[in-house]
Amino acid sequence: MKSAFKTVALIGNYYNPEIREQILALAGFMVERQLSICIEEKTAQHLDIQDYSTVEMDAIGTKADLAVVLGGDGTMLSVARALVDYSIPLIGVNRGRFGFLTDVSSASMLETMSSILAGQFDTEQRILLSATILRDGKVISQGHAVNDVVVNKSGLARLIELEINIDGQFVHRQRSDGLIVSTPTGTTAYSLSAGGPILHPTLDAIALVPICPHTLSNRPIAINSASKVEITLVQATDDARVHFDGQLQMSLQLGDKVLVQRAEKTVSLLHPLGHSHYDMLREKLRWG
Amino acid sequence: MKSAFKTVALIGNYYNPEIREQILALAGFMVERQLSICIEEKTAQHLDIQDYSTVEMDAIGTKADLAVVLGGDGTMLSVARALVDYSIPLIGVNRGRFGFLTDVSSASMLETMSSILAGQFDTEQRILLSATILRDGKVISQGHAVNDVVVNKSGLARLIELEINIDGQFVHRQRSDGLIVSTPTGTTAYSLSAGGPILHPTLDAIALVPICPHTLSNRPIAINSASKVEITLVQATDDARVHFDGQLQMSLQLGDKVLVQRAEKTVSLLHPLGHSHYDMLREKLRWG
Amino acid sequence: MKSAFKTVALIGNYYNPEIREQILALAGFMVERQLSICIEEKTAQHLDIQDYSTVEMDAIGTKADLAVVLGGDGTMLSVARALVDYSIPLIGVNRGRFGFLTDVSSASMLETMSSILAGQFDTEQRILLSATILRDGKVISQGHAVNDVVVNKSGLARLIELEINIDGQFVHRQRSDGLIVSTPTGTTAYSLSAGGPILHPTLDAIALVPICPHTLSNRPIAINSASKVEITLVQATDDARVHFDGQLQMSLQLGDKVLVQRAEKTVSLLHPLGHSHYDMLREKLRWG
Amino acid sequence: MKSAFKTVALIGNYYNPEIREQILALAGFMVERQLSICIEEKTAQHLDIQDYSTVEMDAIGTKADLAVVLGGDGTMLSVARALVDYSIPLIGVNRGRFGFLTDVSSASMLETMSSILAGQFDTEQRILLSATILRDGKVISQGHAVNDVVVNKSGLARLIELEINIDGQFVHRQRSDGLIVSTPTGTTAYSLSAGGPILHPTLDAIALVPICPHTLSNRPIAINSASKVEITLVQATDDARVHFDGQLQMSLQLGDKVLVQRAEKTVSLLHPLGHSHYDMLREKLRWG
Repeated sequence: MKSAFKTVALIGNYYNPEIREQILALAGFMVERQLSICIEEKTAQHLDIQDYSTVEMDAIGTKADLAVVLGGDGTMLSVARALVDYSIPLIGVNRGRFGFLTDVSSASMLETMSSILAGQFDTEQRILLSATILRDGKVISQGHAVNDVVVNKSGLARLIELEINIDGQFVHRQRSDGLIVSTPTGTTAYSLSAGGPILHPTLDAIALVPICPHTLSNRPIAINSASKVEITLVQATDDARVHFDGQLQMSLQLGDKVLVQRAEKTVSLLHPLGHSHYDMLREKLRWG
Repeated sequence: MKSAFKTVALIGNYYNPEIREQILALAGFMVERQLSICIEEKTAQHLDIQDYSTVEMDAIGTKADLAVVLGGDGTMLSVARALVDYSIPLIGVNRGRFGFLTDVSSASMLETMSSILAGQFDTEQRILLSATILRDGKVISQGHAVNDVVVNKSGLARLIELEINIDGQFVHRQRSDGLIVSTPTGTTAYSLSAGGPILHPTLDAIALVPICPHTLSNRPIAINSASKVEITLVQATDDARVHFDGQLQMSLQLGDKVLVQRAEKTVSLLHPLGHSHYDMLREKLRWG
Repeated sequence: MKSAFKTVALIGNYYNPEIREQILALAGFMVERQLSICIEEKTAQHLDIQDYSTVEMDAIGTKADLAVVLGGDGTMLSVARALVDYSIPLIGVNRGRFGFLTDVSSASMLETMSSILAGQFDTEQRILLSATILRDGKVISQGHAVNDVVVNKSGLARLIELEINIDGQFVHRQRSDGLIVSTPTGTTAYSLSAGGPILHPTLDAIALVPICPHTLSNRPIAINSASKVEITLVQATDDARVHFDGQLQMSLQLGDKVLVQRAEKTVSLLHPLGHSHYDMLREKLRWG
Repeated sequence: MKSAFKTVALIGNYYNPEIREQILALAGFMVERQLSICIEEKTAQHLDIQDYSTVEMDAIGTKADLAVVLGGDGTMLSVARALVDYSIPLIGVNRGRFGFLTDVSSASMLETMSSILAGQFDTEQRILLSATILRDGKVISQGHAVNDVVVNKSGLARLIELEINIDGQFVHRQRSDGLIVSTPTGTTAYSLSAGGPILHPTLDAIALVPICPHTLSNRPIAINSASKVEITLVQATDDARVHFDGQLQMSLQLGDKVLVQRAEKTVSLLHPLGHSHYDMLREKLRWG
């Protein structure tokens, strides 16, 4: 049978040495099926894989037509951000308990992959956030986030005050530990711990979730993903910081603005047929 | 100047005798501007208004091209449900503190109305819910809700158990006091008290908010408004009930199903130019 | 070795036929150890146990010096309320997953009981609530609760308004679905679902937890167990009701007052040595 | 009439120049009543008050028998910590909106003080926390907190993991942004923002409130104030920190332990007769 894909890039969480064997098994399986295989360069180096051609992360988007990520949700987030400018579909294989983004279990990896290569899969588009940081009106930093953009106090500051405007409309000034701007994908991550709602991935929405707000009625809001969110640091007893997907992006000064909006590109996730987001919620959140 | 409307229906919360004077002022103001005025029949009866032609609630949708509602959000909800089959725009005038749906204050009523008649307004479409109740596979009740459809235990029952399916996918069985299915409009009402998120009215979403769920990870979810929600009463120590916008619709028996989905029609709300939903949230929730 | 107890009453959840065998095993075990055994009358009837003398629930407090309850937390609550006027210690044996109050597993029942009869146990005093309902200043109902006294709306009412006074001091008027007044024991039950805190059983405290309060800053409060709580129904769109431990006590009329305070007596619970409430929380709430 | 006090120390929030006039008015008022007055040294320096003898903060506890604090709750917290080894009563005068700890308004300051000097006041004892930080079993830091001891992640770390033991019993390992250990006094401050309950000041309790916990069932707990809490930093992607009343105490390394327990001493607060904590809650949290 003809494969739905020709060239497959394999990317692994190379901090986990057990991933090596899994990559080799998957690569062998695909070579048998006449697929071209390339291993992401750092993955190959760290795991000492020498039998396959390697590819830099940056080049995966042009050289392959499917990327298989072996690791947890954290690895998937990194890869999705790195490949944001390409439309290459991603599929995640998890070693331990499956993750929200990595829903193929290693136990059934080859079987599932066989179906996927045969074209039996669902494709899902997930939105990303594009964030720009302005100081004195000039762009000083920018980046993407698959889960969330977080503006929060450092450990030193007792409180920060943020002014929030959406689509040019003043929303409010919020005294809190910080603010999470989350995609639907991110709503099962940090946002959930901060009291945010779960947004289904098909929702064209962005969640704004305050972290420990001073005013108890400052509840989470979900807005249209077409909206432009502007966050201004108006007061801080010490440093405030911006994080993209949990990675520190930079420290903010008073008056700095963080603009967050939906990125033009989306992330394509492939799932086995019959995949249900509700199954994942039920399993991961131990409902019932 | 030509009015954007020809025939205006006035509907008031007739339990409040102070509404009478307001209706008369507004009617006089409009008659001066060559508009046809009709007063909703029960409003006219209860408030003893005899100088204008009356119209039954059911006929407003065909006889008028603008409906002005004088009262609180509760009155607006009733009118919106009653006119669900028509596309007549609604505007709400509030006597006291403005409501989420009734954002023209009585103090500036005539001034605002003057602008609106001159065509200076924003139109907003709000989604409604359409709910159907099935027993043994047969429809036994149906209706609409502007805010929410609530399935909850009666005061007697200690707990009910609901099975929730969305778009044919099993979500979970939930033990709780009940479940709120809310439009974005309803997320600032009962849903908010139960811990639900605020959904911006432009969001094509429906919120599912459990009431006092037994399992602490049963958090509110927002799903696509195109989804079909099926709620089955699978266990109850006593009566369970369905409410549309806070009005008892009926009692449920074990096995009964409540199907909830977005109604085909929307509610058209007119707002003064420059209206911002965030202003309302800030004011009503006393942010800052 | 001499037993710490002479006469043991056995009480079972007689809706569960599997309890019969367990009671017989336990009774046999105790008779071998020269203990007097009596079976609670209804338990004996429903489970058809004829080999032992029976005792009415009311007489257990005077005729036995230890009561073993075989069932779940619900059974334990009933027995504790029934024996409130006596100081007889209770111990709970659970068939399935252990409960918060029934912490001896059926698997290790005989072994644990052997230690307990040998005097190896911890005794814990749990507070109960005493509630009195007044109409026009006259007592119309009273009772006890081990978990909680709940005043809530019936399924029909949309909202009730309660005025709360504590120790003669006005606290506030609260619009909500209801109010839970909970012992520390009750804080892992309904109160937890409504957003209440967990109070350690050794805390001399009572929790007041609003159910879906209209005002978002109406947060749970824990007060001194010596305080007297007075709840007055000041508004209701329909029936309001009072429940003791989840059992309907009665319907309330406007103006009715519910007085809740710590009962004079406590419940004595016996636990195996080394019992830790934190172990139970961790297990039951699946921490970590 | 004889005063209940002989020597009064006045301490002000010297960052607010308007406090000067208030202190002078109060000092003059008291001198007229034959009281000895001393001004806290830094307050006198910063506000340039030269007409009264000054006293170092450390000496207030021995030289005066009443301390009047003019400022907000933050000033009161500092003074209470500084005077923790003495039993001198404190009274707080607030310029703006009254605080939880500073309940005499500046408008009625002289009138209220007149009553208090005449012995018309209520005395309230508030518990404090005593915290000790251990590294490799050795004490490396210690201090007191009136509101709370907080162990949290710095702005860099994504998550920390804390092991919590209470009275030598393992509670759980918690992945979160941090943990708040709060006195009843502190439960209306940061703890409330993090979702904690309100504990009445007369409650002999300590609240443990997780900040954005990973596990949704990790709910706030209130334990007996006689308990000893041990928090061990078992994992951190970066720095973790300890704060006493919002002031950074130090950075933690893996394995460091923070021991928190009720301090031996309490803070004595004087209130005008008829003071009600519920009035303050209702006013500050805008109930109703």
